[in-house]
Amino acid sequence: MSNKFIITIARQFGSGGREIGKALSEKLNIPFYDKELISLAAKESGIDSEVFENVDERATNSLLYSLSMGLYSFGTGFSSMGDLPVNDRLYILQHKIIKKLADEGPCVIVGRCADYILKDRDDCVNIFIHADLEHRKQRAVEVRGVDKARAEQIVNKTDKVRANYYSFYSGQKWGFAQNYDLCIDSTKLSTNKIVDLIISYLDIKAK
Amino acid sequence: MSNKFIITIARQFGSGGREIGKALSEKLNIPFYDKELISLAAKESGIDSEVFENVDERATNSLLYSLSMGLYSFGTGFSSMGDLPVNDRLYILQHKIIKKLADEGPCVIVGRCADYILKDRDDCVNIFIHADLEHRKQRAVEVRGVDKARAEQIVNKTDKVRANYYSFYSGQKWGFAQNYDLCIDSTKLSTNKIVDLIISYLDIKAK
Repeated sequence: MSNKFIITIARQFGSGGREIGKALSEKLNIPFYDKELISLAAKESGIDSEVFENVDERATNSLLYSLSMGLYSFGTGFSSMGDLPVNDRLYILQHKIIKKLADEGPCVIVGRCADYILKDRDDCVNIFIHADLEHRKQRAVEVRGVDKARAEQIVNKTDKVRANYYSFYSGQKWGFAQNYDLCIDSTKLSTNKIVDLIISYLDIKAK
Repeated sequence: MSNKFIITIARQFGSGGREIGKALSEKLNIPFYDKELISLAAKESGIDSEVFENVDERATNSLLYSLSMGLYSFGTGFSSMGDLPVNDRLYILQHKIIKKLADEGPCVIVGRCADYILKDRDDCVNIFIHADLEHRKQRAVEVRGVDKARAEQIVNKTDKVRANYYSFYSGQKWGFAQNYDLCIDSTKLSTNKIVDLIISYLDIKAK
């Protein structure tokens, strides 16, 4: 019963949210989408995926900054989007792709405002994974290969960028409990235990 | 295994958090403390419980307001607290009582910054219950007997007072996922299902 939902996972950097989402999708035998959303957006638009990677989960910067960074892209087949910054184009493409993937059936989608984009679906479960700063710093160094001396700065900066992205496109506050069905602290629970907890939640909900 | 924890429950007004805590304590066969904390504080201090009820879960107002409302209480046996506003006296008393109750063994404690007060205990699980505004308004009218026309105002005002109380004494933001081990949206889940979910969490944690 637990594999009939679309599950979105928002996550603090270093909280293990991506790993939890991946393990959950494998246990439920449903598709998993994280960076895959960039490739899909690239394929759909014909824009190089590297261009999108630079702006993924980043809110639009100022016009001047966007111009100076070459983040504007003119006329690439989407006439209505031709004059939008790349960030906004990626958001619009991912928005469309996320809706389409949800229509296709149960899956796990990480980040990218998927909770907000799918908020009107009854079969969607929105999860937020967070952890203590120390835990996230350690995990960023061990799993993501982040430089130890800069770990705190990178963890905080990444979350700030994600929070801005979420707030810019959804108008809601990232990390606020009320945006999600379930928020879980991963500091003292293993990935397997959290996956078990989420499956319990899905089973209880489906009853 | 699930009945060896101290469980704190913070809750939005009208979310059913109190009812969930009560049902959980009955299922786990452990004590439940909500308004009971006021009686215990009254008993401990010799102050009338009605005096405390007026300031329960409210942060200290300005000195002038406290004086005008008669919220100052002078010399009632606690010489070190004799010149503190009643709000602060109640907080200090409840702080002491919550620590003592946790030392005595597993229990469920609702509100009153208990998560923050017990943050250094490994056997403490902090839960936040929230729900959609519409659901909370409806519940406030049906369960709490709130006037329908004023339901939204009362729900929002009560939560604002609770948020101020939490932020004043803990220095943290109420309702932010990262303050809690588990946050649950009660909009579409029955009390029984949420109790089952919390017990699943406790069992998984205890494994």
